[in-house]
Amino acid sequence: MEYRKIKDEDNDGSGRDANDLESLRGKTHSAISLGNVVASPVERSKWKRKSVVTLALTLLTSSQAILIVWSKRAGKYEYSVTTANFLVETLKCALSLAALARIWNSEGVTEDNRLSTTLDEVIVYPIPAALYLVKNLLQYYIFAYVDAPGYQILKNLNIISTGVLYRIILKKKLSEIQWAAFILLCCGCTTAQLNSNSDHVVQTPFQGWIMAIVMALLSGFAGVYTEAIIKKRPSRNINVQNFWLYVFGMVFNAAAIVIQDFDAVMNKGFFHGYSLITVLMILNHALSGIAVSMVMKYADNIVKVYSTSVAMLLTAVVSVFLFGFHLSLAFFLGATVVSVSVYLHSVGKLQRQC
Amino acid sequence: MEYRKIKDEDNDGSGRDANDLESLRGKTHSAISLGNVVASPVERSKWKRKSVVTLALTLLTSSQAILIVWSKRAGKYEYSVTTANFLVETLKCALSLAALARIWNSEGVTEDNRLSTTLDEVIVYPIPAALYLVKNLLQYYIFAYVDAPGYQILKNLNIISTGVLYRIILKKKLSEIQWAAFILLCCGCTTAQLNSNSDHVVQTPFQGWIMAIVMALLSGFAGVYTEAIIKKRPSRNINVQNFWLYVFGMVFNAAAIVIQDFDAVMNKGFFHGYSLITVLMILNHALSGIAVSMVMKYADNIVKVYSTSVAMLLTAVVSVFLFGFHLSLAFFLGATVVSVSVYLHSVGKLQRQC
Repeated sequence: MEYRKIKDEDNDGSGRDANDLESLRGKTHSAISLGNVVASPVERSKWKRKSVVTLALTLLTSSQAILIVWSKRAGKYEYSVTTANFLVETLKCALSLAALARIWNSEGVTEDNRLSTTLDEVIVYPIPAALYLVKNLLQYYIFAYVDAPGYQILKNLNIISTGVLYRIILKKKLSEIQWAAFILLCCGCTTAQLNSNSDHVVQTPFQGWIMAIVMALLSGFAGVYTEAIIKKRPSRNINVQNFWLYVFGMVFNAAAIVIQDFDAVMNKGFFHGYSLITVLMILNHALSGIAVSMVMKYADNIVKVYSTSVAMLLTAVVSVFLFGFHLSLAFFLGATVVSVSVYLHSVGKLQRQC
Repeated sequence: MEYRKIKDEDNDGSGRDANDLESLRGKTHSAISLGNVVASPVERSKWKRKSVVTLALTLLTSSQAILIVWSKRAGKYEYSVTTANFLVETLKCALSLAALARIWNSEGVTEDNRLSTTLDEVIVYPIPAALYLVKNLLQYYIFAYVDAPGYQILKNLNIISTGVLYRIILKKKLSEIQWAAFILLCCGCTTAQLNSNSDHVVQTPFQGWIMAIVMALLSGFAGVYTEAIIKKRPSRNINVQNFWLYVFGMVFNAAAIVIQDFDAVMNKGFFHGYSLITVLMILNHALSGIAVSMVMKYADNIVKVYSTSVAMLLTAVVSVFLFGFHLSLAFFLGATVVSVSVYLHSVGKLQRQC
């Protein structure tokens, strides 16, 4: 609660000085008893929207991981992944259009919510999709150097790369404490995922490390670049922005089908091997994708990273009940470090302006 | 460097307000170029003394652990531990007296450095020694519930208990960030010690947990109480204070010899099974004990905990070179969390007064 309240001040009150903040903290004290945290109705609705999208992303991401565990238990992937990815992008496009249709009905077509666009606006939209494609292609090659659990651990480098690129590209400052919190988030997530085989990761060959770092940079860059695109036109309707992002996602994924799975699709059919769980996973991925865009619009990449990290911990806890998993001591330690990191991120905001 | 500088302000400038601190930070900026951190010669010498005793404690503690590894490699303990403990206390007494003799020679006997004492002053001195004795007795029983590596992990509860008792008994405040740093220190130290068997600890039976918590509280209370005794008379010479602390240590350890090892000492002799390494360990323990007292006098229990935690990490790194140990991924993660914790502890000091 505290965390998101303070993040809100980030966007709305960057010009405030320490005294203003003090008075704001004073207000908070009296406001808490009323169950509210932010004073003005506009701020409150902004804070509410940010909270909702962040919570949605956290829940969708953690249920995503649970669906993956479930599908693995049910057996191997029988469907072609490229067709599923294409359907995810198509569904996201359709949902964005449906949302737009509702808005056009109620508000009419305006400069901000019209679908038509200029080359100047649209030209940057294929870049994130292209970056993710390159990253996904690299993913096939990195397994020559690292095993799957090792790759899960190396993926935590994303946290650091996102923080660094957020600072460099978006030129937004994190306070020293927030940087410390970010390092802790990376350490905590990695610790929580430790198991008896994790030490293999340290012996990853040099090429493996380079690829892992390149993939982390690609992923971080794609995230930060998406935020830059979406935030460049703050008044532009998010559904239009999503539509154009996802259209290019469809194009790139259609290309991936042709390159990788053309024969399989031709011989066995597009929907070969689909099951109820495949449909649920596609639905979940589509909704998560939209939630990521919303977080980029109304919050930022840092909130996204915290949200998905907390989701990882949630998944583990839920898996205890669903699948009878055991939580390790390393998990408890990592989860504590992540919790302290979330707290420090919020405190770091105040400290910066102190 | 930053860390100790700020700790110094803790003792000397608790009345300062935020503006004073700002000007002090300004001074620091210009002073750094001269290689100095604290402005006045008195403050500088205080800071120097604190740094020296903290560094000494860190180095002695880490070499202590290395001696233990070395002695384990050389074979089992053949000597009786109670006689060694008695000799440690005797040596500390002798060293305190030697230091006092030198001071009496140069400065003469004063109110502050005279050895004779009042009942009012001396009556509290046996308490820490008694607490440690109870803790050491419990140590024999806890191994019925936890194995030795598990006990090493549970010992990290000491960090939390010291922080809590430091707050309650000495009534000194830690800022919120310093508390967060303290939780991280505990998590980081535990993470660094994780190995493939660590998960057994989670299955420790209830009685084991209770004993571990009681032992942590006893150890924390002994430490905090020692600080309270030593700091109660700031002008009293530390060597006199040490002398009285160690005299009671001798008495309690003599009792332990009679209770536990009377037969062995009578049959095999007091020095049975002593080797070069035993002598080195006794020497090291005596010097570490004196360093702990000095840290209590010139710094505090929090500095002591950080110092011994960093020593634990140092020991592991040195063991790589000395004994060919391998550092695990968990060690790197834990060491990073501990480093961030040290940083946050120093930052937390400023934030508190912000």
